[in-house]
Amino acid sequence: MDPAITPELVANSWALLKPFHDKVGYNAPKVDRDLAYGDHPRHRLDVHTSGDENGTANHGAPVFVFVHGGGFVGGDKHVPGTPMYDHVGAWAVRNGWVGVTITYRLAPEFTWPSGAQDVAAAVGWVRDNIASYGGDPSRIVVAGHSAGTVHVASYLVGQGSDGHSGSLDGVKGAGLLSGFYQIPDGAERGELEVSYFGDKPSAEVSSLPGLLETEIPLIFAVAERDPEFSHTQVAELTAAWFAKKNAVPNVIFSAGHNHISQIGSIGVDDLALGAQLARFVNRVTQLSPGGTTPRTPR
Amino acid sequence: MDPAITPELVANSWALLKPFHDKVGYNAPKVDRDLAYGDHPRHRLDVHTSGDENGTANHGAPVFVFVHGGGFVGGDKHVPGTPMYDHVGAWAVRNGWVGVTITYRLAPEFTWPSGAQDVAAAVGWVRDNIASYGGDPSRIVVAGHSAGTVHVASYLVGQGSDGHSGSLDGVKGAGLLSGFYQIPDGAERGELEVSYFGDKPSAEVSSLPGLLETEIPLIFAVAERDPEFSHTQVAELTAAWFAKKNAVPNVIFSAGHNHISQIGSIGVDDLALGAQLARFVNRVTQLSPGGTTPRTPR
Repeated sequence: MDPAITPELVANSWALLKPFHDKVGYNAPKVDRDLAYGDHPRHRLDVHTSGDENGTANHGAPVFVFVHGGGFVGGDKHVPGTPMYDHVGAWAVRNGWVGVTITYRLAPEFTWPSGAQDVAAAVGWVRDNIASYGGDPSRIVVAGHSAGTVHVASYLVGQGSDGHSGSLDGVKGAGLLSGFYQIPDGAERGELEVSYFGDKPSAEVSSLPGLLETEIPLIFAVAERDPEFSHTQVAELTAAWFAKKNAVPNVIFSAGHNHISQIGSIGVDDLALGAQLARFVNRVTQLSPGGTTPRTPR
Repeated sequence: MDPAITPELVANSWALLKPFHDKVGYNAPKVDRDLAYGDHPRHRLDVHTSGDENGTANHGAPVFVFVHGGGFVGGDKHVPGTPMYDHVGAWAVRNGWVGVTITYRLAPEFTWPSGAQDVAAAVGWVRDNIASYGGDPSRIVVAGHSAGTVHVASYLVGQGSDGHSGSLDGVKGAGLLSGFYQIPDGAERGELEVSYFGDKPSAEVSSLPGLLETEIPLIFAVAERDPEFSHTQVAELTAAWFAKKNAVPNVIFSAGHNHISQIGSIGVDDLALGAQLARFVNRVTQLSPGGTTPRTPR
């Protein structure tokens, strides 16, 4: 398949993946749906648990918050009849965590930094409410895919925050999957970017400088058959990260996958992304960080 | 631990890892040792198999050839009483392949391109002999660690070869773990580099330009706590790869590990390196390449 992100790529990728998800199963034992984390109809999230939150399985468990993609103008945490993105919640629960999948406001009606503000509000809801679902509000990892990554990165670096509203309390790590950190200016901006960022200057809306400063552990991912602009982002990120830290960033390379099948691989081809991402979550949320001590695979 | 590669780092890293290896076991069911692939006493290799090569387990199996590190002047395929590097052979067999660990001639007596010539000779031996151990001579993956990676990369790009002697027949992929591809010139060259490369110019001994041209699939790795010069190599590789291909290379980032514990992680912390490396080997050696079709984890 051509790497360009078209409706055909989305449909064909999911058509390939769905039988595998059907076989493995893509629903957590319990899903509490459409809990409101704000006033807008799209301020909704689903909580995925093992269903025995009064027992021990999810008691004080790490919380994995997932922010979907969709080019700033579309997408949803849950597309009925498909694995999207219940499969991420189910995978989180299989890993012993609580999963949270969120929906947020869309462009062109809502523009930058509304995405960051919505992620911040959702994380705030998690901090206030997740204990009653068995989650630990002090061990949160936030991850996004594609445009969702833009919003997560934007939140991490404090865009749209008055400080309190964008609190990072409890956030122990972030997963930035096939995202965009250096937003181009003016004429180089694509239609979808214009719809969300308008004509705001690159220096104002790009998260890359802030990501180089944050102390929150980050893991990135790129798919082998991601569009060229995703690879450009990782090349620029690697150069900037190295210039700043004399080290390269932690980037998962999802061999064989495209922009869509990469996130779809979670739960069915976990060595492409899920296993590395899970190792990251387990490392950054462990109560007694073990440094370089190896642990046997779970 | 400080990332500098000192005898203490080597000793301490293996001291941490050994109990895990003792628990998992680091010997394949059958190891044929010290088979000669050339005239020099260090032209020796060990073949690791399931022990039922006349049955089906290893019949026509992919072959994983491992080239140890040691700063060009030391190291061995097998250090008795330790997992080094039988654990790589055992891991290969657990993955359903035949494992081959090789020893090669050392600097300062033997200098560039002796390492490449030895890797070529060992691969030639594998092509001629591995079928009788259940291996498939047309499905070879060659991997190196540290200085061993330099030799593997050097072999891949034809250094020291008259064409025939450096044949890549049957080589379906290569793993380049914490290696060096852009060798500095003159005063920037360290003592160990001088001992192997002498004063030969960077342009003659560096493999990076050739790696950008090869059609053999490559996977790279870097450890989070590798010395800065390893990170420099990956940063330079990423920039050059992107400039050439408009894509970033496949790099495994071994979070939490240092230069030594990274290769030691194979078999005991496989999500740091081994699982990704195994996925690569399985992808490049499969008889019917499946493109982007996902496969459930083994």
